[in-house]
Amino acid sequence: MSLTIDLNSDLGESFGAYKIGRDEDVLKIVSSANVACGYHAGDPSIMQKTVKWAKENNVGIGAHPGFPDMMGFGRRALTVTPEEVYQMVLYQIGALHGFCRVENVEMQHVKAHGALYNMAAKDFSIARAIARTVKDFDPDLILFGLANSELINAAEEVGIRSASEVFADRTYQPDGTLTPRSEENAVIHDEETAIKQVLSMVQDNKVTAVDGSQIEIKVDTVCVHGDSPSALQFVEALRDRFKEESITVQKVGASL
Amino acid sequence: MSLTIDLNSDLGESFGAYKIGRDEDVLKIVSSANVACGYHAGDPSIMQKTVKWAKENNVGIGAHPGFPDMMGFGRRALTVTPEEVYQMVLYQIGALHGFCRVENVEMQHVKAHGALYNMAAKDFSIARAIARTVKDFDPDLILFGLANSELINAAEEVGIRSASEVFADRTYQPDGTLTPRSEENAVIHDEETAIKQVLSMVQDNKVTAVDGSQIEIKVDTVCVHGDSPSALQFVEALRDRFKEESITVQKVGASL
Amino acid sequence: MSLTIDLNSDLGESFGAYKIGRDEDVLKIVSSANVACGYHAGDPSIMQKTVKWAKENNVGIGAHPGFPDMMGFGRRALTVTPEEVYQMVLYQIGALHGFCRVENVEMQHVKAHGALYNMAAKDFSIARAIARTVKDFDPDLILFGLANSELINAAEEVGIRSASEVFADRTYQPDGTLTPRSEENAVIHDEETAIKQVLSMVQDNKVTAVDGSQIEIKVDTVCVHGDSPSALQFVEALRDRFKEESITVQKVGASL
Amino acid sequence: MSLTIDLNSDLGESFGAYKIGRDEDVLKIVSSANVACGYHAGDPSIMQKTVKWAKENNVGIGAHPGFPDMMGFGRRALTVTPEEVYQMVLYQIGALHGFCRVENVEMQHVKAHGALYNMAAKDFSIARAIARTVKDFDPDLILFGLANSELINAAEEVGIRSASEVFADRTYQPDGTLTPRSEENAVIHDEETAIKQVLSMVQDNKVTAVDGSQIEIKVDTVCVHGDSPSALQFVEALRDRFKEESITVQKVGASL
Repeated sequence: MSLTIDLNSDLGESFGAYKIGRDEDVLKIVSSANVACGYHAGDPSIMQKTVKWAKENNVGIGAHPGFPDMMGFGRRALTVTPEEVYQMVLYQIGALHGFCRVENVEMQHVKAHGALYNMAAKDFSIARAIARTVKDFDPDLILFGLANSELINAAEEVGIRSASEVFADRTYQPDGTLTPRSEENAVIHDEETAIKQVLSMVQDNKVTAVDGSQIEIKVDTVCVHGDSPSALQFVEALRDRFKEESITVQKVGASL
Repeated sequence: MSLTIDLNSDLGESFGAYKIGRDEDVLKIVSSANVACGYHAGDPSIMQKTVKWAKENNVGIGAHPGFPDMMGFGRRALTVTPEEVYQMVLYQIGALHGFCRVENVEMQHVKAHGALYNMAAKDFSIARAIARTVKDFDPDLILFGLANSELINAAEEVGIRSASEVFADRTYQPDGTLTPRSEENAVIHDEETAIKQVLSMVQDNKVTAVDGSQIEIKVDTVCVHGDSPSALQFVEALRDRFKEESITVQKVGASL
Repeated sequence: MSLTIDLNSDLGESFGAYKIGRDEDVLKIVSSANVACGYHAGDPSIMQKTVKWAKENNVGIGAHPGFPDMMGFGRRALTVTPEEVYQMVLYQIGALHGFCRVENVEMQHVKAHGALYNMAAKDFSIARAIARTVKDFDPDLILFGLANSELINAAEEVGIRSASEVFADRTYQPDGTLTPRSEENAVIHDEETAIKQVLSMVQDNKVTAVDGSQIEIKVDTVCVHGDSPSALQFVEALRDRFKEESITVQKVGASL
Repeated sequence: MSLTIDLNSDLGESFGAYKIGRDEDVLKIVSSANVACGYHAGDPSIMQKTVKWAKENNVGIGAHPGFPDMMGFGRRALTVTPEEVYQMVLYQIGALHGFCRVENVEMQHVKAHGALYNMAAKDFSIARAIARTVKDFDPDLILFGLANSELINAAEEVGIRSASEVFADRTYQPDGTLTPRSEENAVIHDEETAIKQVLSMVQDNKVTAVDGSQIEIKVDTVCVHGDSPSALQFVEALRDRFKEESITVQKVGASL
């Protein structure tokens, strides 16, 4: 039996006259798309196009709900209650689901965006609010969450499937969390180092933390970016290496 | 066989700290609720509460999509293409549908709000865009539209059910359209006159236009307001008269 | 020489069709108005009206900048940098200043709103960003801030005037901070107790903390509310007592 | 005495994570900048940067107010009253003025954006509302408006200076209006043709309409774009030709 892995990317982040990302290119090389839902990015027009393109490329479609902070692109933490999280996530999942429904395509997953994702990774009450929304809306949806985080724990408690997500270009702490971006060594700039880290995670469920220790990490999906030519090139290189190693890239819904 | 009629009202128009309407009271005396979807009014919290209350009162739930103009409450005409209308209406229907889904209640109808409603009543391309959205999302949904307007024509062309809507407190032109609000005699202020007009429309499918001529009008649902004590009192009086006349108030989905 | 005190209230918080507060009544009994600037509340129409009414009543006009979170009414903490604070506060001060300019009336002060106010009270870097904005825009403006807080410290460091603000209906901790609203005894519900607390602060610069200890507190302005009949009644009662005690209510700009 | 001309461009249209335009490059080759004010584009951070850059390049700074429709980039007509126009334009002018004030630089002009500009060009009541706002805020400001349009008429009636604006890449109708973009021949794609049209307008106050007739046109400022390399190249070519013809490019405030 061969190894499989999912590659996911944040897409549909354009807004009105504002264009972000090379979505049509990215959709040819990833297997899952996290589609912005109009709160931190995206609008109805982009959502429709992104769902259509994802369907055409047989890419798994996910809602990518964020904070209602377009000016901050959903990257600024907002103090919200679990109830508010439930409601704003439900609104956004519902909105994207409308576009899936008219295109006659299933929604595969939900992945929180930016500050909401980061807060949920650490705060179980926020994570559980998201997991409950997903379950109440459609218990077959898969919740994406940072590997080893409260998002994964919340999915388990609530009783829905989760996909453990890792980042190719980020370093890890000995406790399994990501090195904060404020640290100098947070980001891996060397392509080969990044690829090797991913391979180690996918093949051995292990990653070397910044202190040199080896830690266990489950990985179902790898987050990649498509907002620059070099980002796209990295994904191509990663896919080539996967091929050499007989690792099949496929949307997570097909294997979970 | 007895006559039936639907009473609908715009609800869920509060937003954050801003409260509009006496929704809990109105939901006890109407049979259909048009729920704002966050573009011209409403937010995820209000949407959730309104759907819950509507379900508890066995009131038909409808999406009430409007223009993305909270500052203008969706009452200002915005020059949009049919494609933009399709997308923004779909977004809003989907968002509200999420709340219906977690409450395990069916959505009954869609009614455009404010300037979008008025534009669609006269512009077939806008009306058709709305009708197509409704059909693509769920062909069992009922499209509410001004009686004798392009909204009704569009529903027929597209092949979905429509509900012809009349207004108790508005006068009519000889061609069956509403007298524009800019005219002095646009609004009926006398309660008894308004009630008699409704009865004539419901029982005889006729309304007396401002020039004294009798015109034909189909009526499935009557729009009423609940934003003031006097508005609520009028609805009570209307219901009492319906009872005397053996006209049953019930949500339109039960009879269409 | 007689004692003077300023009474300030948050005003101009309506938005489009949404009405909040009894601004016209409140403006007759307060001496300073904190006018919402369109980010957490308010819109250009309300801003214009509020500035006009404030001018007519000879009430000191202040900008009341908040977070760009209309849905949360500016009450939810948002993780922002001091630079972002500087920019968003400047934008809002400038916007309100336009309305003062066409009405030919001076702006008197700036008071941050809600979560921004609370964050600035504790975080010197946020407080300093606000103080610097005020100074850069107009060094004659007065910065309102919670008595004993970082806002007052920041004004002093930056070199602008500040007005120490107290709350009639809130209890105080032994360290001079407000008892958090999450505590049971945070709010004073008894009118006479609230009035006595204010008098003690105004006449003796002292307040009795929740543990019974007496602490020093400087007070230039008292925050009062006008969003309900009982709130207005309290302000009337407070003004009556001030009169009995020969304390003159006047806008803070007249005495600082 | 030598001829002078102003080159203006819409700038500061980025928003949060969304980038539009090559503002730093454009500011080196134009003489006036129309800075978006946060309604249809722009945010406080971009506004601050753009004002700083414009000041560094000695470029005339103008407010560029638009409709509150970020999703439509201010390009969709919104049915507003003259009073609403006055208020929303004042809000935006004030907001930008704050940034000018802290940078200690004068605002030079006001130019309405997109659909608001187009509506004002034809509707005198809208044009007059804009002109009155400008006069009430600062009677020394220059109002930019389409040559031969109601905006120019309104400035004259209200008693403020105006700058007649022409478009290098647009064709003209025999009545002096722009050929609507819906027409096939609305846009001039050939660089040399566009440059010749501008020269004719600047040197002879004449332009050849689409029917071949020569019409009179006053020109104070030419609108150019900077959102693509080819657009920038065109401006360079235009400047070179101006130099050959001894036409000096300078901000309109220096000559009016």
